[in-house]
Amino acid sequence: MKIAVSGKGGVGKTTISAGLIKYFLSKGYKVFAVDADPDVSLGTVLGIDDDSVDGLKPIVEMREVISKKSGGGGAFFPLDPQVEDILEEYIIQMGNLFFLKMGAVKQGGSACYCRENTVLNALVNSLLIKQKEMVLLDMGAGIEHLTRGTSGGVDLMLIVTEASKVSVNTALTVKKLAQELGVKNINFIGNKIRTEKEKEFLKSTLPSKEILGFVEFNEEVLELAMGFHPLEKSSAASLDLEAIGGEILSRNS
Amino acid sequence: MKIAVSGKGGVGKTTISAGLIKYFLSKGYKVFAVDADPDVSLGTVLGIDDDSVDGLKPIVEMREVISKKSGGGGAFFPLDPQVEDILEEYIIQMGNLFFLKMGAVKQGGSACYCRENTVLNALVNSLLIKQKEMVLLDMGAGIEHLTRGTSGGVDLMLIVTEASKVSVNTALTVKKLAQELGVKNINFIGNKIRTEKEKEFLKSTLPSKEILGFVEFNEEVLELAMGFHPLEKSSAASLDLEAIGGEILSRNS
Repeated sequence: MKIAVSGKGGVGKTTISAGLIKYFLSKGYKVFAVDADPDVSLGTVLGIDDDSVDGLKPIVEMREVISKKSGGGGAFFPLDPQVEDILEEYIIQMGNLFFLKMGAVKQGGSACYCRENTVLNALVNSLLIKQKEMVLLDMGAGIEHLTRGTSGGVDLMLIVTEASKVSVNTALTVKKLAQELGVKNINFIGNKIRTEKEKEFLKSTLPSKEILGFVEFNEEVLELAMGFHPLEKSSAASLDLEAIGGEILSRNS
Repeated sequence: MKIAVSGKGGVGKTTISAGLIKYFLSKGYKVFAVDADPDVSLGTVLGIDDDSVDGLKPIVEMREVISKKSGGGGAFFPLDPQVEDILEEYIIQMGNLFFLKMGAVKQGGSACYCRENTVLNALVNSLLIKQKEMVLLDMGAGIEHLTRGTSGGVDLMLIVTEASKVSVNTALTVKKLAQELGVKNINFIGNKIRTEKEKEFLKSTLPSKEILGFVEFNEEVLELAMGFHPLEKSSAASLDLEAIGGEILSRNS
């Protein structure tokens, strides 16, 4: 199954992605986690040290490898051990977790990230996913990965939103664009929920059947983001994420 | 003076932009506020109704007008009444506030925003700013406006950051890229500050002389984002922003 996690900047895409990745790993899945935001942070939140992430070859340089293995552009290939061996420089492996990054930070004024997005799109489309395998893309903030079509090849678009007007506006725009891209399954996750009023706000502004669940606001996540301690099982937010992970598996099995 | 407001998604770029815009207006400035995020929200936070923002022609369509007025590409032109008259369709005016947007939301899979960024860059570079005039660009999340060079023509890069490791990482990357673009003045604003510990974290991870100030975390801003009431003078956060606005004027006069 291929999942893209999207939404307005700062709604918690990376935290939600990391939580779901941990959940799928705990259920015995092999998870390919892709940081698709050029301003990379998923690796950090997953507890990979910065030097390893910096040293990792980005997917954009993978084009040649893909062509070689598939005997020309556009062909499909499975993520089998043979390919993984070749892809070693592009992957940080920790148990069943395989971490990849879309691109590296470029020089100021040098270029856009169109090429990175194109290569990532080709990769996602060409991956053959087996039972108990999961690809999760943590997308860049906002909508450009959708207008570019990068995230078009996924089975499920998860849209994260806070209980704010601007965040819901973006969420609904993301949904519209994902539909235009032909993504069949589109779901929302309400994040950083502090009060019942916030839940009600989201239920009244989003199609309620499409809401997978809510994740409670968590001071610990703030601490975590400050880098004081590594990600660990904790608190209501963690339980919320497990429930949402379970919901994803049951809705898509 | 031309200012770009940047930083990681969700750090509060738009809230800070809106606060500074209100401050400069209160000091008698004419302010050109540009929403440079294709996922538009500055207009909403400034209290402009969604239909007006949606109906506004984006700057990307302005290229021809710029060429005509300047007698060919690349020339400079002042924002005088004569030009403003022509630009009417591209501007929502409320008193001394002139609101513009970079681009509109495109179809899923149709295109990137490279052209929008190029036109905005040309516009910012060609504007001749007079005394008591201010251009403020609320940039998209992350770093692509910098690798694309969009925000290269500004006098001051304001980098907003929360007290989190990932937010500071982005802030420092933004600084490096802005330096590469030749932006001379680069300053930081610490936002959503809840505790002294968070202030200390930012002072220890950023060059302290370059920190313009801190803005207190504010529940009211959350309410505001939910769309329950319009932006108004309130609370500690508002005073923090006034102090920072004053600091910007005194450091750059």
